Amino acid sequence: MVQQDTSDRATVRLIPKAEARAIRHGFPWVYANELVTDRRTRGLAAGSIALLEDANRVPMGVVAVNPGSKIICRMLDQDPAAVIDQAWFAGKISRALAHRARLYPDPFYRLIHAEADGLPGVIIDRFGDIAVVQPNAAWADLLIAPLVAALQDVTGVSTVVMNGTGRTRALEGLAERMDIIAGKAPTAPVPVPMNGAIYMADIMGGQKTGLFFDQRPNHAFAAALAPGARVLDVFAHVGGFGLAALAQGAASVLAVDGSAPALDLAEQGADAMGVADRFSTRKGDAFDVLTALAEEGAQFDVVICDPPAFAPGKAALEAGLRAYERVARLAAPLVAPDGYLGLCSCSHAVDLTKFRNASARGIGRAGRRGQIIHTGFAGPDHPLMPHLAESGYLKAVFFRL
Amino acid sequence: MVQQDTSDRATVRLIPKAEARAIRHGFPWVYANELVTDRRTRGLAAGSIALLEDANRVPMGVVAVNPGSKIICRMLDQDPAAVIDQAWFAGKISRALAHRARLYPDPFYRLIHAEADGLPGVIIDRFGDIAVVQPNAAWADLLIAPLVAALQDVTGVSTVVMNGTGRTRALEGLAERMDIIAGKAPTAPVPVPMNGAIYMADIMGGQKTGLFFDQRPNHAFAAALAPGARVLDVFAHVGGFGLAALAQGAASVLAVDGSAPALDLAEQGADAMGVADRFSTRKGDAFDVLTALAEEGAQFDVVICDPPAFAPGKAALEAGLRAYERVARLAAPLVAPDGYLGLCSCSHAVDLTKFRNASARGIGRAGRRGQIIHTGFAGPDHPLMPHLAESGYLKAVFFRL
Repeated sequence: MVQQDTSDRATVRLIPKAEARAIRHGFPWVYANELVTDRRTRGLAAGSIALLEDANRVPMGVVAVNPGSKIICRMLDQDPAAVIDQAWFAGKISRALAHRARLYPDPFYRLIHAEADGLPGVIIDRFGDIAVVQPNAAWADLLIAPLVAALQDVTGVSTVVMNGTGRTRALEGLAERMDIIAGKAPTAPVPVPMNGAIYMADIMGGQKTGLFFDQRPNHAFAAALAPGARVLDVFAHVGGFGLAALAQGAASVLAVDGSAPALDLAEQGADAMGVADRFSTRKGDAFDVLTALAEEGAQFDVVICDPPAFAPGKAALEAGLRAYERVARLAAPLVAPDGYLGLCSCSHAVDLTKFRNASARGIGRAGRRGQIIHTGFAGPDHPLMPHLAESGYLKAVFFRL
Repeated sequence: MVQQDTSDRATVRLIPKAEARAIRHGFPWVYANELVTDRRTRGLAAGSIALLEDANRVPMGVVAVNPGSKIICRMLDQDPAAVIDQAWFAGKISRALAHRARLYPDPFYRLIHAEADGLPGVIIDRFGDIAVVQPNAAWADLLIAPLVAALQDVTGVSTVVMNGTGRTRALEGLAERMDIIAGKAPTAPVPVPMNGAIYMADIMGGQKTGLFFDQRPNHAFAAALAPGARVLDVFAHVGGFGLAALAQGAASVLAVDGSAPALDLAEQGADAMGVADRFSTRKGDAFDVLTALAEEGAQFDVVICDPPAFAPGKAALEAGLRAYERVARLAAPLVAPDGYLGLCSCSHAVDLTKFRNASARGIGRAGRRGQIIHTGFAGPDHPLMPHLAESGYLKAVFFRL
């Protein structure tokens, strides 16, 4: 177990103009241009635990330092005497677990959502007896041993997978890796109960941690519209919206995705639910399939499009908005009169207003009109810090056409 | 029954600089400074049905004109030949009803939400066999007969109450009135099933139409946090959040409101649900009661504050934000560690970011920190036009402290 000797801890210091007040009020980051970066600080190993002082040398708390990152410090604890050990991790994880256990009957959820759950840069998704850890900041990569010990102790999970494939790791100078830290690697997809559906999560080979828990409330909203409906689930992945709709009595679901392995998992989910007779898939580029369906004269009562992030960063904003508009324009003609169109964005750079406007524009270009009946975000197992509330990346806007 | 002779219809015309494109794309209003207001137009009776032309005399649709209102035209139908009669109303109401019937097992909902449901300025709430109509625009006041005939025909309701007490009526030059248009006035509070709770709605004497349907999904979210919890419901009205929490197994609920009649209805609801032993009330100014509870050392697992609109218009914005901050500052100390604080705003002038920031500031001034776990809006029986999406007045932000 890693244990810091706090007396020997390095000290880093804010420059006089830094936003010390925001940090005292809970802002969790120090940017590189706010810190005195003398040779000693530049020489700290990525992920070092240090004491942060303000410009007047008043201690502000314990931080993780990464001299190579734009986010040079991440606040771990405002108590300058805090020791970042297994007990400290256990405290954070226990608090996070109590919230999820209150919300969800089954232990399938995002357990740790980084800064908002007190573990900066750390993502942990739980799949029953299995936890998948994404240490996307250098400090957590270094302290993975006490983190995982605490995780097992608090939750009782027997298998812990470390998934070091997130694209933010590169910003921290971390290499890609995939490890089994405890227990045995699952050899088959893991069935995940959610909204009455069963999803098959490929823990070792899938996207991110194998499943997206963030869409849970939006799946539920779409499913409530679905009884008796013909549903089209575009960018379906493992069937997120489609299988939830089938669980609520959709007449039929067509799932479209570019990935054959994802659609295979979706079909396994439909099998496990006993609804395979109402479920079909179509592999292909989503834009092509939407165009083809329109040419075939296909009509659906509920159409959902949950594309990948078209605008992951600010540079891609304009192109991203055009792509969202195009999705709406191609999907709207497939919606039967008085039917529903649910459009999602997981782009950080696209705010709700821009996304809503691009979607409405696309619907208009298709010659349709829509009312907005619902706007949803990521579920409550994806908390946000108020200081980073604009970081709510996921938006789902439901129209009735 | 009122019937227009379309050949004899008045014509009104946009000035050359008017936003004709926006109107063609679905924007539902013409402002007074966009219309040619010659003597003939100024002479039209408030609520007249007219043909709208663009500056080049190309017909744009059928509008309702109110020469005395800042919103001088409301678009009723983009078909210039449309006849605004009972059949036309029936079409709008049928379409709105199909959406609500799909969403809700019981016929208790907002049936018509004005512009977004195609009836500008008209609100209709349904309470089973009773409908309450708020004709908040002059045209609907004039055409109340075919509107009500269509409403009864489509929905089968036997009682129709006209509630002409909305504050927007004054902007249209309409007097306050309260009438029974069909059936008999209910002589007792009407039980309304929602989220497993029973609310008592005072149709004839209560606020607005007797009950607020808009908070339904936010009630449900709060209730999901409530099993076993001590819940404080501030600005409780007839018990919206509190009774939903009891339906989901809250250990106890304390409802606070300034209105004795509202709290009496809440108690009747708790009685009807058989949960009166877990329900108590405290009448008084909410700020005073919050302060008193803190002095008593009271602690709750879930605290919800759903105040009236502190900033109904832009002039009241700063004062309103201070009031929201104060609510948060006084409520946060009553939240037990790891408990939840739900804060709502129904102020048009306060957008989500401003409200969230004011709330977080208040929590911080109370010496607490919070994660945001959920942001909710009005339910899907309160649709929005994309062009007026910023008009989503209701916001609910849930923090975990």
